[in-house]
Amino acid sequence: MYLTQCLHRAVQQYPDRTATAFRGRRRSYGEFGERVARLAGALVGLGMAHGDRVAMLAPNSDRYVEYIMGVWWGGGVLNPINVRWSVPEIVYSLDDCDTRILLVDDTYLPHVEAIRAKAKHAPLVIYAGDGEAPEGMLSFETLIADTPPIEDAWRGGDDLACIMYTGGTTGFPKGVMQTHLNLWSGCVPRLAEMPQPPNCVVMHVAPLFHVAGLGRVVTQFLAGGTHVLVPSFDAGELLATIEREGVTESVLVPTMIQALLAHPDLSRYNLSSLRRLYYGASPSAGAMVEQLLAQFPGIELSHSYGLTETCPVVSSNPPENHSDAARRSGLSRSVGRGGIGVTIRIVDAEGREVPRGTVGEIVVRGPNITPGYWNKPEETARAMRNGWFHTGDGGYMNEQGYVFIVDRIKDMIVTGGENVYSAEIENVIARHPAVAMCAVIGVPHEHWGEAVHAVVVLKPGAKLDEATLREHCREFVASYKCPKTVEFRDALPLSGAGKILKKDLREPYWSGKARETK
Amino acid sequence: MYLTQCLHRAVQQYPDRTATAFRGRRRSYGEFGERVARLAGALVGLGMAHGDRVAMLAPNSDRYVEYIMGVWWGGGVLNPINVRWSVPEIVYSLDDCDTRILLVDDTYLPHVEAIRAKAKHAPLVIYAGDGEAPEGMLSFETLIADTPPIEDAWRGGDDLACIMYTGGTTGFPKGVMQTHLNLWSGCVPRLAEMPQPPNCVVMHVAPLFHVAGLGRVVTQFLAGGTHVLVPSFDAGELLATIEREGVTESVLVPTMIQALLAHPDLSRYNLSSLRRLYYGASPSAGAMVEQLLAQFPGIELSHSYGLTETCPVVSSNPPENHSDAARRSGLSRSVGRGGIGVTIRIVDAEGREVPRGTVGEIVVRGPNITPGYWNKPEETARAMRNGWFHTGDGGYMNEQGYVFIVDRIKDMIVTGGENVYSAEIENVIARHPAVAMCAVIGVPHEHWGEAVHAVVVLKPGAKLDEATLREHCREFVASYKCPKTVEFRDALPLSGAGKILKKDLREPYWSGKARETK
Repeated sequence: MYLTQCLHRAVQQYPDRTATAFRGRRRSYGEFGERVARLAGALVGLGMAHGDRVAMLAPNSDRYVEYIMGVWWGGGVLNPINVRWSVPEIVYSLDDCDTRILLVDDTYLPHVEAIRAKAKHAPLVIYAGDGEAPEGMLSFETLIADTPPIEDAWRGGDDLACIMYTGGTTGFPKGVMQTHLNLWSGCVPRLAEMPQPPNCVVMHVAPLFHVAGLGRVVTQFLAGGTHVLVPSFDAGELLATIEREGVTESVLVPTMIQALLAHPDLSRYNLSSLRRLYYGASPSAGAMVEQLLAQFPGIELSHSYGLTETCPVVSSNPPENHSDAARRSGLSRSVGRGGIGVTIRIVDAEGREVPRGTVGEIVVRGPNITPGYWNKPEETARAMRNGWFHTGDGGYMNEQGYVFIVDRIKDMIVTGGENVYSAEIENVIARHPAVAMCAVIGVPHEHWGEAVHAVVVLKPGAKLDEATLREHCREFVASYKCPKTVEFRDALPLSGAGKILKKDLREPYWSGKARETK
Repeated sequence: MYLTQCLHRAVQQYPDRTATAFRGRRRSYGEFGERVARLAGALVGLGMAHGDRVAMLAPNSDRYVEYIMGVWWGGGVLNPINVRWSVPEIVYSLDDCDTRILLVDDTYLPHVEAIRAKAKHAPLVIYAGDGEAPEGMLSFETLIADTPPIEDAWRGGDDLACIMYTGGTTGFPKGVMQTHLNLWSGCVPRLAEMPQPPNCVVMHVAPLFHVAGLGRVVTQFLAGGTHVLVPSFDAGELLATIEREGVTESVLVPTMIQALLAHPDLSRYNLSSLRRLYYGASPSAGAMVEQLLAQFPGIELSHSYGLTETCPVVSSNPPENHSDAARRSGLSRSVGRGGIGVTIRIVDAEGREVPRGTVGEIVVRGPNITPGYWNKPEETARAMRNGWFHTGDGGYMNEQGYVFIVDRIKDMIVTGGENVYSAEIENVIARHPAVAMCAVIGVPHEHWGEAVHAVVVLKPGAKLDEATLREHCREFVASYKCPKTVEFRDALPLSGAGKILKKDLREPYWSGKARETK
């Protein structure tokens, strides 16, 4: 499981097939292979030794795919930077895993000066845009033009392929170590479960610094098809790209799918090439699936569940479970079953398997599981117990092995010995027409241990009182699940990625008390 | 890549599906999983520690599949014995890798006494037949009935899964070490390249002690379908089994396929379930393919190339390359292209890649390649050079990466600086109606270095002289490829498996000379 193997195969067997397409620029696998071997030579020439990290801070492009393969070809390790991060977060990741080379394109040029000033070791910067390299930076294109191709470093197996930083919502970001074996094992079985023909054309919209994006790049290399790169989400550009490139499949999140479906020019594009959409876990995907199947009859939908630590896929719900019957039976709400190589169990707090239908923590094992967090042995030990990676997600498994996710374990509220899943109650509260946003947390309670507490933001001009909201909840869920207390606010604290920071909501209630707030 | 993972998945997701069928006896995956966990417990109770070898000497059966999974579940390593071997060969393999537990069924009971007497450590013997266990042996069924199931040992990755002994024709047998990762990596990509539906029913005719048989068992476990076991090749039994079990696919060698096609009752069986046949490399498969496609229109044929050391598949020629057009273009004679994870090169004696179309040695690298031969570091170093496993097979690659095998490298004759492939000349000689069998070898020649020499066995009563045979050859191949000398014999020296022992033919010519005869 050298991740470069698929490039050897492409160059040997189908050098004329299109490897990358980016805004009309196309490169064949022959050309791509040559550029990768030259870029690898340049990086090695700039000091990249085996195992050294190289970062990229840029939206999706054909050069991003060359960066991925070029670093691996030269024996290095990716540090693909989340473009939504602030400079201090970027600098933290560069410092944490000692990254000395940084690729940027035009979009993030303005960050370079601050990064250089604040990083422990000011990185060597390579400009990977279309123009001239700014002063003090090397040019991606010049390096490729001037460096002869080198032989593959043939890194593989347990060698690191990537350090991918996750989360800012739960404290300092953690660098998830992903080996060649991890990414290979997380991607090859996907092809066995949902085969892709060699002429498949995948559109990468999900950012390549995210494990879903990187995983799809690896899977597409294994399949041997064409990568179409889209730098950011714009429904119109996506529709035009699908038509122009004959895109056959893509990974999208539900909000993107909804935007596509709502686009006024949807019917003016020829989207007949589109055969399959993969989408990420979402509790509200039901209506979207129905609309999607009405718009694209016969399209294959696959719903996957995974984490950065599982490189990426834990389970997938295949197209046949999106049928009318499956939607009626509720099977379409499952995230699927453990695939080839990945074993899933649902366990209690002591790690014992719980009976089917009972909610517990989802734990997994398999060759796709990260060896741990970079330089964080304690966090690694907390996640990896008795050989099982603890996802922190709560869920249950039905008799056929299908997994249903209910909540983050740490968002689960234990009140009077009963488990309440905040997501369930948030969905109920959100149905009230006056509610714009809400969060449900557990707060300390003398008698019940924890009590259900709701924090609610109303729509502009809307009115709602606590008693009415509690009544609304009681219509849908058992009384013990309804909020004991409700707090109305003007806004909720959000992370950079738009996630509600429940930790901040919990803190004032729990400071000095036993519950671990993270 | 725990090889037991597929059993966890089966028991969790489809416990009622049929796991094994043997002469009408069927066991569900639920039952199979329970028996495996009990057998593992019994083996551990008998002293099998992690990494310990356990042998089985028996034809294919459902218990053979339980042995495979049970040994892995308990943390042990398979030593599946070639049933064609003599007692000294069996004892050699037991002694060589220190195997202390041996499973036998009725067929090979007569060997047990001699094995016990001659082995360095008389093995503990488990009788895995249908009757009562003979005195001094344990009973497979009693062990399963009496032992509670144990938890999986979760061995995987670089842990050994099997030591498979190969060849007696080239000196002492060598124990090829096959890790969990090797077998997983040799099998998972097969499913990506030729997907199998979960309801597939595979008939195992190829012996399970052979890598083709074991590899298909692993692939079928990954696919999650049913294993149908056939103990030995009998065309009539095969036809009846296909009908009775609804067999969808099987691995067969060309002689088996020919026997099936020639069976007088062929048309009386309902063979409509048969969807796919995998067959091993054979130079004379052309006519068979034509006949097979005429008899079973629409059947998918896949031709694979592999070795015990490649666990098992190096390359496969898919169904589409068996079409009329592919047969006319010669593409159907290829063994296919490097698959997902396996990189193939054709190299010269110094390890340099040769141009397309030029014959050289086939070398491969990938996660499926054995770490080496048990206790034979020198043999390992000879085969594994610069990261590439040297197959010993000569072949060439066309512009699209398709590999064509021409000969074993050591059977190649270098005469006057030209390479002559003995297989090519043997095929020409065999076309002469008077010839029953032949072998072509290189013998020392003062002027040419080596000279082409043919050893020929005539059909009973047939007559042929050297000059006529040379003339026959000259009709088909260049003069330098024609035998300089011909020797007529009553018989050729054969190995137990029916292979011609060219080493014995060469020896008298080369003893004391430089050519290495192996």
